[in-house]
Formats: sequence, structure tokens, C-alpha cells
Amino acid sequence: MPVKFIFSNAIGSFVLDDKFKILDEVLFGDARQYNNRADYEEKLRQKHKDAVTADETSLRSIMLSFKDKKYFPYFHGINLSITKKQIKESVSKDILIVQAISAIEEIDKAANLLINRAREWYSLYNPEASNKIENHERFIALITSRTKKQLLKELNIPEEESMGADLTDKDISQALLLAGQISGFYKLKGSHEDYMREIEKEACPNFMEVAGPAIAAKLIAHAGSIRRLVEMPASTIQVLGAEKALFRHMRNKKRNLPPKYGIIREHQLIQKSERKMQAKAARGLADKLSIAIKVDYFKGKFIGDKLKKELMDKLKVQY
Amino acid sequence: MPVKFIFSNAIGSFVLDDKFKILDEVLFGDARQYNNRADYEEKLRQKHKDAVTADETSLRSIMLSFKDKKYFPYFHGINLSITKKQIKESVSKDILIVQAISAIEEIDKAANLLINRAREWYSLYNPEASNKIENHERFIALITSRTKKQLLKELNIPEEESMGADLTDKDISQALLLAGQISGFYKLKGSHEDYMREIEKEACPNFMEVAGPAIAAKLIAHAGSIRRLVEMPASTIQVLGAEKALFRHMRNKKRNLPPKYGIIREHQLIQKSERKMQAKAARGLADKLSIAIKVDYFKGKFIGDKLKKELMDKLKVQY
Repeated sequence: MPVKFIFSNAIGSFVLDDKFKILDEVLFGDARQYNNRADYEEKLRQKHKDAVTADETSLRSIMLSFKDKKYFPYFHGINLSITKKQIKESVSKDILIVQAISAIEEIDKAANLLINRAREWYSLYNPEASNKIENHERFIALITSRTKKQLLKELNIPEEESMGADLTDKDISQALLLAGQISGFYKLKGSHEDYMREIEKEACPNFMEVAGPAIAAKLIAHAGSIRRLVEMPASTIQVLGAEKALFRHMRNKKRNLPPKYGIIREHQLIQKSERKMQAKAARGLADKLSIAIKVDYFKGKFIGDKLKKELMDKLKVQY
Repeated sequence: MPVKFIFSNAIGSFVLDDKFKILDEVLFGDARQYNNRADYEEKLRQKHKDAVTADETSLRSIMLSFKDKKYFPYFHGINLSITKKQIKESVSKDILIVQAISAIEEIDKAANLLINRAREWYSLYNPEASNKIENHERFIALITSRTKKQLLKELNIPEEESMGADLTDKDISQALLLAGQISGFYKLKGSHEDYMREIEKEACPNFMEVAGPAIAAKLIAHAGSIRRLVEMPASTIQVLGAEKALFRHMRNKKRNLPPKYGIIREHQLIQKSERKMQAKAARGLADKLSIAIKVDYFKGKFIGDKLKKELMDKLKVQY
């Protein structure tokens, strides 16, 4: 009895004779069927118990026979379907972290732009309040919830002392609408931050514990993904975000010192260290971050608190 | 009978004898009383019917006697009060126009920053919708009011064709919150624009008619006030906002042509004119703007429609 081959590729599972003519086939309609190709091959195997997996020489001939133009539409269709599925599945937790931190940073920029406008506008009406209340969030909360009279009283300023213009309700309402919008921004930012912490807790709990949620997200965003962070040495993580200073140093080592830190500069451990200890703190922090992200990537246990404690003990800084 | 003088200054109204000793006085407590100083002087005149207004020589001596240090606190107090009152009253319609147009421009900037983030974020979930809906406002309105399923159906895209990831409600809700905030921006901008039109109608109806509300506001903001616009020749209004090109021209006349227009470049009359007619259109527009703002400043009649018609007839362009 002549030999029969069994063979699967992207478009289907096939049984071929010793002349490489197709005797039986199952064509895949979409990426889902392609993903279950082992099952389809198994079914063919049940039907053609004598069929064997092709050896290397036969395999070459079998594959060549699929170069026939009549198969091209099948290959095109299934490849498109597979690619779409891969794109669909490429959205991982780190992409969501990157979106959240980018949105937070952009909301900050937008809010800073608009808060200055709101202050200038409202100051025409009530300059004393704007001068006395330095904190932006508090300023917005107060002016949107109190009348000028109430606010001046709370700040102990006699109303007749105020240099603010007697604007009509119509005039001041526009400035207050703007303030309301800014207040919505602060709420949105808070919501994004909560969400970011939640997904970091799932995707990189150790890294988040050591870096803090914001710096963790910025490092992931800058590297591109958690995977790329895993592949970086600690010394690279240390200067991530300070590329300009790093390359200036590499061009002219005599004149330009290497940067001590990049994104991690904002970290409490470095902020709270004495100036001459900051380089040491940055090295120590980067080391622990490098360990933490590897543990997270390979789904290790939670050791973030231990790493953090070691750091704080070593540098005698609480954060 | 010796002569008596009557005299008023910032701190009060006084009756003095021929030795310039004060016989009677009314001290002003605040800027309001100072503003009504004529009434107080009149009352003193009733009491001292023989008092005369001081001649130039006596006036000099009277004023010198007020150089006494004991009057300084009075002068300081009343001057502070007057200055505060002036600041209070310095808020005019043009300042409100400037605040509104500045807010509108800054909201535009902020919205552009955030719309790109919202698109990128939402695209992880539903890339087809983001690609198909080019208009930002429509995009925001649709994604905040429809589910992915509804939206794909409306765009005639089979759901299984979508390359978007199957994000959880929690994941996509953050992108939708951001979109909601942007939608609030568009509303706020519309409200500011309505308000700006209203106050321009009161403060500079002719100027607004010829320039359009946005360009009118930008010109006022750039000049600083309506009054400063009135003082400018038409040729300056024409290049307002193109100072960089103007000074480049003034430094090197051979190499750099003078600018044809500044802020008014965005005006429909110029946008719709043929290229070689644009300089003529800019001159004509600036001439009419210069007339319109003067009529507005001196509270003349409404001739905006007439000025506009003359312009359109001359340049054969409708706007």
C-alpha cells in the first residue's frame, strides 16, 4: 500500500498521497479554527489511520505544491484573520498603564494652562481671594462653592476693602464655568490615578511598591513595555529619561559628567537623601527596581515590601 | 474784616483765615466722599458766606501749609481709597473680551492635547471608529453616547472584523471619562463664544460686524484695549500680530518684504480672495476696521453693515 502523508499549514489540514496529491482536507475559515488546528489534524488522523507525518524530503515537496496560485486567496484570507486576532490580543496591561500615565501628564499640562486663565479672570472680580489662596485645587473648590461675600468673610477681608470690580452675574459666570471645568479635571485625574494603581497591582505589584505608582508608570511608558524594562540593566533604568545628558557625556567625557538619574529623580528616596548621597540612592533604587520588574514579569511572589525595606535601611531614609 | 479762603484737596474741604490757619473743615473718610467734594465745599460756603476761592499766591501758601507731617496719614488713607476705587472701576468691557478670547484659545490648545490621547486610548478598543470618524467633536459625541456594538453597526463594520481589544468595562471607562471631559470643553467653548459676542455687541458692534467676533477679540487682545486700537492707524491694524515679519522687514528691506497681514489673515474676506488680491483685501479690511472701532469708541451709530457691504462690493467676495 502506498504511503499517505498528513500535513497542516495556515490554510488547513491535509492528507496527501505519495505523489503529493490531496486526498482529504479540512480548510480553516478563520484564525480561531487555525488556533485549534491540532484537533482538526487529529480528526483526519482518525479517518486515515495509515497516514504518517511527512519526513523532511517529502515535506519540501508538499510545501512546494502549495505554491500553486489557486491557494493564494486562502493564504491571504487566513493571514489577515490571524493578524487581526494578534492585534486584538496585543493590548496588554502595560499599554493601559502607558495610556493612563500619559493622560495624567497631559491633564496636568492642560489644567495648568487653564488655572492661570481662571485666576486672572476671577481676579477682576475678587483679586484678594486669588492672592490669599495659593493652592490651585483649593482655590477652584472655594470659588465654585461660595459667593464673593462668603469668601471675603472667610478670608477676613471687609467687603468694602475689596478692589474687585462689581461684575454682573453674567460676566462672572463665564469665569466660574471655566473653574468648574478645571474642577472636573482634578476629579478625572484622581480617577485615572486610582485606575492606574489597580492595574499596576495586577501587572507589576513589586515594581509599583518600590517605585511608587506614578514613577513606575513613567518608567514603563519610557521603556515602551514591561518586557523591555526586564531586558534593561539596572544602570539603564537609573538614567532612563536622561538620554540627552547621557549622550552629551558620551560625546565628551571630559567636559560632561554622566547623569546620576533620569525619571527616578522625582522619587522620595532621592528627594529625601542628602545631596552627596543622591547618586548612591539612585544606584540602589535602580538595582531594586531591576529586581522587582523581573519578579513581576516572571510572576514571582510579592517581595516589594522587602526590597523597599532593604533600600530604606541602607540609605536611612523613610518613604 | 479779614479775608477768608475756601479750599479743597484730596483729604477734605477747608476754610482758612488770612494767616492760612484752618477755621473750619470737612475731612473725607473715603473715595466716595472725595468724589462728592463739590457738595461738601458748597455746605462750607453756606456757612462761611464771606469765604472766597483762593487766588494764585494764597493758593501756594495754603498748599504749602498742608506739607505738615500731621496730614500725611490722611493723604495716605484717602489716596489708597481712591486708588482702590479706580482699580475697581478699571474693569471695562474690553478686558472681559480679552479674558474670553484668551480662554477660548487656551481651551482649544488643551482640547487638542487631550483629544489625541482620547483617540489613542479608545483605539485600543475600537480602532475602526476612530479611523472612520475624522471630526473630533463628532467622534467624542459618538463614543460617549453609544456602545462599541452600536457604533460599529452604524459605521457598517461587522463586529468580528474589528481589530479592537476586548477591554473590560473598567478599562474602557477611563478613556470614556476623558472623552466626557473633552465634550465639556466643547460646551464651555461655545458658552464663552456666545458671551463674547454679547459683550462685543455692547462694546464694539461695528467692529464686530466687520471683523467677526473672534478676529475682533483677537485684535483687541493684541492691542491691549479698544482705546489703543482707536489710536492706531489702519496700516498698523493691518499687520497687528505680524510684528516679527514687520521688524525683519525694517531691519533688512531688500531681503524681506513687509508682511501683508497679521491677525486679519484668518478673515473670510482674505481667505476667499484670490492670492494676488489678498494684499488689497487686507488694506481694505484694515481701513474699514479702523473706521468701525472709532465709531464704536465714540458711541456712533451702527454702520457696520454698510462698511461690510462696501468691502464685499469692492472685492467681489461674500462673507
